[in-house]
Amino acid sequence: MSSHEDRLKALREQLKADRLDGFVVPLTDEHMSEYVGSYAQRLAWLTGFQGSAGAAAVLPEEAAIFVDGRYTLQVRDQVDGSHWSYQSVPETSIADWLKLHAPDGGRIGYDPWLHTRDWVTKAKEALADKGAEPVAVRRNPIDAVWADRPEPSRARLIVQPDEYAGKSSAAKRQEMADWLKEQKADSAVLAALDSIAWTFNVRGKDVERTPVALSFALVHDDGTADLFVDSEKVGEDVRQHLGNGVRLHERLEFENVLRAMAGKKVAVDPERSVAAIFDALDEAAAKIVTRRDPAVLPKAIKNQAEIAGHRAAQARDGAALSRFLHWLSVEAPKGGVDELKAAAKLQDFRQQGGDLRDLSFDTISGAGPNGAIVHYRVSEATNRPLEMDRISLVDAGGQYPDGTTDVTRTVIVGTPTAEMKDRFTRVLKGHIAVSRARFPEGTRGSQLDSFARQFLWEVGLDYAHGTGHGVGSFLAVHEGPQRISPVGSAQPGGDEPLKAGMILSNEPGYYKTGEYGMRVENLVLVVPVEAEGAEKKLLGFETLTVAPIDRKLIDTELLSPAERRWLDDYHVEVLNIVGPRLEGEAKAWLEAACAPL
Amino acid sequence: MSSHEDRLKALREQLKADRLDGFVVPLTDEHMSEYVGSYAQRLAWLTGFQGSAGAAAVLPEEAAIFVDGRYTLQVRDQVDGSHWSYQSVPETSIADWLKLHAPDGGRIGYDPWLHTRDWVTKAKEALADKGAEPVAVRRNPIDAVWADRPEPSRARLIVQPDEYAGKSSAAKRQEMADWLKEQKADSAVLAALDSIAWTFNVRGKDVERTPVALSFALVHDDGTADLFVDSEKVGEDVRQHLGNGVRLHERLEFENVLRAMAGKKVAVDPERSVAAIFDALDEAAAKIVTRRDPAVLPKAIKNQAEIAGHRAAQARDGAALSRFLHWLSVEAPKGGVDELKAAAKLQDFRQQGGDLRDLSFDTISGAGPNGAIVHYRVSEATNRPLEMDRISLVDAGGQYPDGTTDVTRTVIVGTPTAEMKDRFTRVLKGHIAVSRARFPEGTRGSQLDSFARQFLWEVGLDYAHGTGHGVGSFLAVHEGPQRISPVGSAQPGGDEPLKAGMILSNEPGYYKTGEYGMRVENLVLVVPVEAEGAEKKLLGFETLTVAPIDRKLIDTELLSPAERRWLDDYHVEVLNIVGPRLEGEAKAWLEAACAPL
Repeated sequence: MSSHEDRLKALREQLKADRLDGFVVPLTDEHMSEYVGSYAQRLAWLTGFQGSAGAAAVLPEEAAIFVDGRYTLQVRDQVDGSHWSYQSVPETSIADWLKLHAPDGGRIGYDPWLHTRDWVTKAKEALADKGAEPVAVRRNPIDAVWADRPEPSRARLIVQPDEYAGKSSAAKRQEMADWLKEQKADSAVLAALDSIAWTFNVRGKDVERTPVALSFALVHDDGTADLFVDSEKVGEDVRQHLGNGVRLHERLEFENVLRAMAGKKVAVDPERSVAAIFDALDEAAAKIVTRRDPAVLPKAIKNQAEIAGHRAAQARDGAALSRFLHWLSVEAPKGGVDELKAAAKLQDFRQQGGDLRDLSFDTISGAGPNGAIVHYRVSEATNRPLEMDRISLVDAGGQYPDGTTDVTRTVIVGTPTAEMKDRFTRVLKGHIAVSRARFPEGTRGSQLDSFARQFLWEVGLDYAHGTGHGVGSFLAVHEGPQRISPVGSAQPGGDEPLKAGMILSNEPGYYKTGEYGMRVENLVLVVPVEAEGAEKKLLGFETLTVAPIDRKLIDTELLSPAERRWLDDYHVEVLNIVGPRLEGEAKAWLEAACAPL
Repeated sequence: MSSHEDRLKALREQLKADRLDGFVVPLTDEHMSEYVGSYAQRLAWLTGFQGSAGAAAVLPEEAAIFVDGRYTLQVRDQVDGSHWSYQSVPETSIADWLKLHAPDGGRIGYDPWLHTRDWVTKAKEALADKGAEPVAVRRNPIDAVWADRPEPSRARLIVQPDEYAGKSSAAKRQEMADWLKEQKADSAVLAALDSIAWTFNVRGKDVERTPVALSFALVHDDGTADLFVDSEKVGEDVRQHLGNGVRLHERLEFENVLRAMAGKKVAVDPERSVAAIFDALDEAAAKIVTRRDPAVLPKAIKNQAEIAGHRAAQARDGAALSRFLHWLSVEAPKGGVDELKAAAKLQDFRQQGGDLRDLSFDTISGAGPNGAIVHYRVSEATNRPLEMDRISLVDAGGQYPDGTTDVTRTVIVGTPTAEMKDRFTRVLKGHIAVSRARFPEGTRGSQLDSFARQFLWEVGLDYAHGTGHGVGSFLAVHEGPQRISPVGSAQPGGDEPLKAGMILSNEPGYYKTGEYGMRVENLVLVVPVEAEGAEKKLLGFETLTVAPIDRKLIDTELLSPAERRWLDDYHVEVLNIVGPRLEGEAKAWLEAACAPL
């Protein structure tokens, strides 16, 4: 295997051959996915950086890697500082850096299948001062020098039955057709992989942890569609399921079909569609109207079948997690449990529960100080034992055919300090405040975020991540458009009004660098709430996750009567749902864990 | 006096003469002021509309007036529906309406001294579909037909002494010069009237309720400045105060001086500077850099002298308000007090307290159902008596040389219903939640807004206005950039990080249409807060307003121990500051009003 130094050198030679004075390397794919297949891991291949967000810029004499605050330490571990300069976003952007470092009049390459049009516009503006310009490449120069680049996955699509989807693909497409007519548009581009999976009621295995298939689609105002996916991945069952209303094409045909849309009015989502899609439609002289992908909102608002499926998945998941917490309570004090063993054991319990298709993300299993690293991924190198009187945090989830789960529990092996109990109880109070919140229709997630932080703020503490993200139905564990986070934070969504049927995580935390991390995460469902004399339609949350919260970490004195009642009621619910699925010692443990405070 | 029908007709004839197919009439002035002098009240003159926000568009055969939800009823009362169609913003915008109604290829006039450049850009885009275009007029066609249009005020400027300002104008300008050097710019345009008053430590009397003078200014990177203000308004004292570093020009010279700035790099605030300023600089081939007006942030962050002055003004104001509340408690139950009388009496008490220069806005005095009209202004026509067992709301403030005040108190004459007490207590709990909030540096006002609403939300209630606005120092009672309101609300500012030294109002309310309105408003100061073990720099609020809150309206059972303690502590503070300023029965009343709950 070539060294990263060799790879950088090879890329520079390729750039020279392509007559480019630089190249920009983002960490995304042709679908603006959050997680991307191994074939698209160009940033990791080039630099060695293993984080889940970042980008690089390569010039003839200089190269820089851009990461956010989560990865400040990690990037220094993984990427060679003698060849790469470390840049922090959002303080610096690639555009800003290029503005300073690009050669006068330089041609800076970018792959138009990996950037939004908005990015290209900004890069153009930034480079203009130097007479330089971003240049769209026809072939990604990294692919030219990446000899052993993995092939894109060839995994077959599977049908997501209507019983779980709750609505047929034809019905979903008809609603999109009605919407297109309202917009006076002919067709809509679907480029986001989860939007396509949802629209056609299919799932795939092309990306780890997210059951989607690499594909593009066009939906038309007559309810028919064109689906672009490699034919070898589509079996007879899926063909039958898709029916006559869906014309199948090879994935690579997508660009050619776009180029043939002369005179059509096409709705394109500028956040979810790459610049190359706009370029192809422009070349065709199609009329582009920028609109949000029409699958995004209906996908976020779960129907009754999806909600019922989610509850069934949560019962299974809660039983697995409860078994795991019981096992931990027995084994950890004996010693010999470490982060890797804990993660593996939790996965075992999930698998034994049945129907597990995949994890919904790589398990975060952080003992002691490792728990304080917010995006920690355990490895052999960092693995730590679960020691006595130390806090451990496990954040994990499952992909089930009827639902996607995501839960964090924080436990103490042995006895917590007074400080640990104080901090944990403040986190829990924030979690409860969000759970108990009622708010008028139209309220945005950003308006609820501070409820979760207030008890930490009181004593000068906080956590450096959002409070909640949307979650898919056997789809992405991070699903837009809604979020509970302040407007202006790194990920968008805080300004999206919450609607009944949306599922979100509720996950305040606290992280003490070098000592411990704690987080309480349940998934919650937005539900209508009745109140006598109400003048507004009211919404609230119903908790979906069912697993006990460690009472040893709670300072009961800090809880108000209403907060205590919430926790006791929650534990009754956990026992009702999970209890019947456990037996013997595990069941006895659960009963004790769920007893009133 | 001509009828509004005649005025509309005259305007249409003038448009014809000017070869225009339409004209847009905003309610603002050349400084993007919130409140404007009578000379600039073109919308009211043309339509009869008396609200504080709105706009109109006139076409040869059609005319429309655009107001927001606050004025839906009022516009129908004041503006003739047979000549004007009523349009609601933000549902419709002028641009949207013109897009539908403007004649193909039409020339739609606008006064470039009354619109932002951003507005012009959007109007251009909207009209382009019809081949129509916005056309900047040299002379406002309304002024041509408005025979008895008031002259702009000729009031003289006064010096704001350093003892109140806390920093000399020279020092302020030097800081702007340093900032300009950082920005590599030569000069900054100051167009906002309060920015100019603050920068030069002068005040004026050209706009009611806000002590500013009609003027423009340019500040340069050497700390000198050009001030454009009618020379007849500048006495020897002000000339001496301004000194050699400030070159005086007639106000009308401003445009010519801009046109002579060829090659200069000029910082202009696109929110606070009208399109004509950009046009003049463009014609000069000056290089424009868009930056926020450099006075905005330092003006919002009060220095020690300004804070001390504000406290002194509050003591005076609190004494006046307390005398008034005592008077009301004696007189109202006897009958014979009405809204007008109450407002006049409160103004009397303020005047008697000394140093009152003006009210800081027209007093809102709303009895019973009138209190539910959020932007109510009492008049002979709407005046109501303060009846027994009814709620009254008074929102008023004073302009003192050392500070600007703004306070709302809600009182019951007689006995409240259980519902009134429940609602008032929820409003009060929200007020207390904001007052007691602690939050890390960097927190924006939008992140605190829901603390004020949560107890109303619980039972399906809310209020349709922001929770808090910034307040000037003997300047505008609504002062940016900070606000406590959700991001995405009508007025900007919710996304501005709060900083120690900022003054804001804290004013949750509840309004029951046809019955009553209630609001608890104090001004608060952002202050640093210490907390043991804090990992973040913490901020909190210190309450500046000192006047009792009506205990008859409080349901003590609904208050937590901490909330009770807050109110009792607040009343101790009120008594300490205001008590020594009262005597006899008023003092005894205050003591009872401030006793622990």
